[in-house]
Amino acid sequence: MVKLEDIQRLCLTRGIIYPTAEIYGGLSGTFDYGPVGVLIKRKFIEYWRDFFVKSMDCIVEVDGATILPEKVLIASGHVESFVDPITQCEKCKSIYRADNFIEERTGKFVEGKSTKELTEIIVQEKLSCPNCKGKLSEVKMFNLMFKTFAGPTGEQIAYLRPESAQNIFTSFERVFRSSRAKLPFGIAQHGHAFRNEISARQFVIRSREFNQIEIEMFFDPENDDFEEFQSIANKEIILVTREAQLKKTDAVRIKIKDAVNKKIIPNKWMGFFLAKEFEFFKSLGIPESALRFRHMLPEETPHYSGGNFDLEIKFDFGWKETVGNAYRTDHDLKNHSKFSGEDLAVSLPDGRKILPHVVEPSFGLERILYAILLYNFVEDKERGWNWLRLPPKIAPYIAGVYPLVNKDGINEKAKEIFKTLKKNFDVLFDDAGSIGKRYARADEIGIPFGITIDYQTLEDDTVTIRDRDSTKQERIKISEIESFIKNKLIL
Amino acid sequence: MVKLEDIQRLCLTRGIIYPTAEIYGGLSGTFDYGPVGVLIKRKFIEYWRDFFVKSMDCIVEVDGATILPEKVLIASGHVESFVDPITQCEKCKSIYRADNFIEERTGKFVEGKSTKELTEIIVQEKLSCPNCKGKLSEVKMFNLMFKTFAGPTGEQIAYLRPESAQNIFTSFERVFRSSRAKLPFGIAQHGHAFRNEISARQFVIRSREFNQIEIEMFFDPENDDFEEFQSIANKEIILVTREAQLKKTDAVRIKIKDAVNKKIIPNKWMGFFLAKEFEFFKSLGIPESALRFRHMLPEETPHYSGGNFDLEIKFDFGWKETVGNAYRTDHDLKNHSKFSGEDLAVSLPDGRKILPHVVEPSFGLERILYAILLYNFVEDKERGWNWLRLPPKIAPYIAGVYPLVNKDGINEKAKEIFKTLKKNFDVLFDDAGSIGKRYARADEIGIPFGITIDYQTLEDDTVTIRDRDSTKQERIKISEIESFIKNKLIL
Repeated sequence: MVKLEDIQRLCLTRGIIYPTAEIYGGLSGTFDYGPVGVLIKRKFIEYWRDFFVKSMDCIVEVDGATILPEKVLIASGHVESFVDPITQCEKCKSIYRADNFIEERTGKFVEGKSTKELTEIIVQEKLSCPNCKGKLSEVKMFNLMFKTFAGPTGEQIAYLRPESAQNIFTSFERVFRSSRAKLPFGIAQHGHAFRNEISARQFVIRSREFNQIEIEMFFDPENDDFEEFQSIANKEIILVTREAQLKKTDAVRIKIKDAVNKKIIPNKWMGFFLAKEFEFFKSLGIPESALRFRHMLPEETPHYSGGNFDLEIKFDFGWKETVGNAYRTDHDLKNHSKFSGEDLAVSLPDGRKILPHVVEPSFGLERILYAILLYNFVEDKERGWNWLRLPPKIAPYIAGVYPLVNKDGINEKAKEIFKTLKKNFDVLFDDAGSIGKRYARADEIGIPFGITIDYQTLEDDTVTIRDRDSTKQERIKISEIESFIKNKLIL
Repeated sequence: MVKLEDIQRLCLTRGIIYPTAEIYGGLSGTFDYGPVGVLIKRKFIEYWRDFFVKSMDCIVEVDGATILPEKVLIASGHVESFVDPITQCEKCKSIYRADNFIEERTGKFVEGKSTKELTEIIVQEKLSCPNCKGKLSEVKMFNLMFKTFAGPTGEQIAYLRPESAQNIFTSFERVFRSSRAKLPFGIAQHGHAFRNEISARQFVIRSREFNQIEIEMFFDPENDDFEEFQSIANKEIILVTREAQLKKTDAVRIKIKDAVNKKIIPNKWMGFFLAKEFEFFKSLGIPESALRFRHMLPEETPHYSGGNFDLEIKFDFGWKETVGNAYRTDHDLKNHSKFSGEDLAVSLPDGRKILPHVVEPSFGLERILYAILLYNFVEDKERGWNWLRLPPKIAPYIAGVYPLVNKDGINEKAKEIFKTLKKNFDVLFDDAGSIGKRYARADEIGIPFGITIDYQTLEDDTVTIRDRDSTKQERIKISEIESFIKNKLIL
């Protein structure tokens, strides 16, 4: 099976994604996108936007600063509660995340336990430092936010936002008003978020700076109905219910409308997003067998939540949260109203004034890109090289343009075709080495088509187009290339 | 004349750009883009990319993390030198940037003076706190980088990048190699950068978190020739030479090739970017009379520089740097080679191994957006409202879609047209209030066209299209709307 190491190697050698400041040994958990990665990332975000934002008429997008003043994070609860328990070896000074450490070593489920309880378990279970057998310290809480100071005297505490959502809540009133909005109303955002992970690891899976893509969908909890729900009501998803987790039974396949009617899913908006996500990930080449929604257990869910559902993807190293779907109720707007003194309630046409409720699908971009690479990575002994079966819509380049030889005007003709295509598409020009090597290089980063210009091109204005997946070639007119490509870009 | 306050009011009320965490009083110098602002920003970046990156075959793009380990900023010189002199009132504790403070009050030019010299001037000139007349402290240096710590023990110092360029230099080797590049080779990047300004002010002009769009163009200093230079060699720019600044004479109009030949501009790449920028800003509605390049004086230029040229725009409050064009020579690659121990030299086809030289055009996005709004803001007494003459390519929406009345199937017909257009364009649907009010709202955020669906539409499938600039209307077929719009999107 394809492994993290294979993907990592591909990402490094082909300029997809690599450690930040790599020549200095990096800063663990931070990554830069290279030329190929930037293109895949940008196309992915555009596809996401088309799929989730532009397909609706009630969702707008914002883009906020990543430094936030302390007050925001006090109100949101992050200053107090965005913490992980840690324990340190008193001898070698290694640091461990206490809950994970205990779970891995004892199999005990300790989510939600206090620092005191965790310390007791370490003592009872006689756990010591796996590195040097040294004694482990009392468990204490470590805040995962990056702290900094604004202004020259250092008295203004600020944090790098641990989730992009807070910009949406604090600007809700202005956005709602300036958009002349009515409920339901969604606000989407793509941007960086930051978490000072105790141990950043598994390549991009647990990183300290990452791309988050979110929607906060605001709606009236007394009336969660909307037109688009009908389009997904009969769709099925795979769901690990709370019951299944307790009884250790299998995930169930369930219709959205049934799950909503049975109150397994708390409202129609949550159902809508789960259905859309299931469809979205399948369209990106991730099979149903590697997708499931897990209803988070009460002890994994904040007290204010009306129910959270993680979309988990089966990676080479196990199932992992990739999209968090949280029913945040009116918790955030309520707290920001209280702490800021601004009334964030909105007036409804029926005369009521309410704090809208919120359903939040929150996508972790790096994990998703990793999943896409993993499930589209083809180990191909016959072909002699590995390749990526990326959907054309998110491929870095839609086509490579290759002059068969670098003489007799063929290179010039190829350049001409390349320059014309480049006006409307991302295309790559490559005239180095044999055609076979160029195909291999293109396959490796998932370029769907290869356009070769040869002697016949000079005679009849035709080129060959090679299909990445079948490796078959067909001959088409130069004038037909654009429409050929456009037809393939409909995912 | 249009003023900062007019633009600021428009930005606030129409959801273009507003203070981050505004309900908490904000964190000065940080801003969020609202729904309209996000669209303008995104289109601007796409236009910039088409104009500067995609128009060339030798420029790729990357996207790096914004947290950088301390080592990078030590090597780049920022830990030592990215400082501003400050003085504090010993009584009321107000803080002032010492050099600006002295210049404003005495008219003396003090760029490059030491803290000791600045302190002496304060004493000699008997300068006191303008707020409370209190005594001003000794001048000391304040580092403008935001500092933070990675990992749970806090021993890993990191900074928010003060310029996005450093990610390009530290990843140069990997990007160059994975792209199979040759010189000249450009690496572009858009992303956030952070400067802990002593006094963030003038709306978005001096902000603490901002969007930077840069290209680092790497080339062989012994051979700076390239094909595309010919396309701009005869173009003219307006240049304030060093001589003109010393003799206080006017800016000159000069041909790029003459300026390069006379060594006023240090190489062809610098000339190329200056010419392109001049053209770019004019295409965005900023008149020549508000554009000039200033050759920075030696005391404003880092010691390693081969010559820096600021593109200055005349704002309502005066001329201000908006694009910095720096000839950074091989300074950065040399230092990163030295500090990291990695040899960042590249081999040339002629057998030489060199550290490439770099020309860097660095765009401050917020200042540019402000300039665009300022110069496209039309105060229109006759029309009765102000409007934006945004070029269609960067308008937030290309068209508004308006049902004349909300009955007899007109609204449904309008929705149908809206949904079709939305697949390919950003369009706005508005059915609230009189048509006149809807035109006014659309004009105010620069929507170029208004499509109205009326009773005649139901009969013959035609609509009226209103032109924002002339306010004239014409009737066209529904089937012609898309091609009408496409023709207007060619800037």
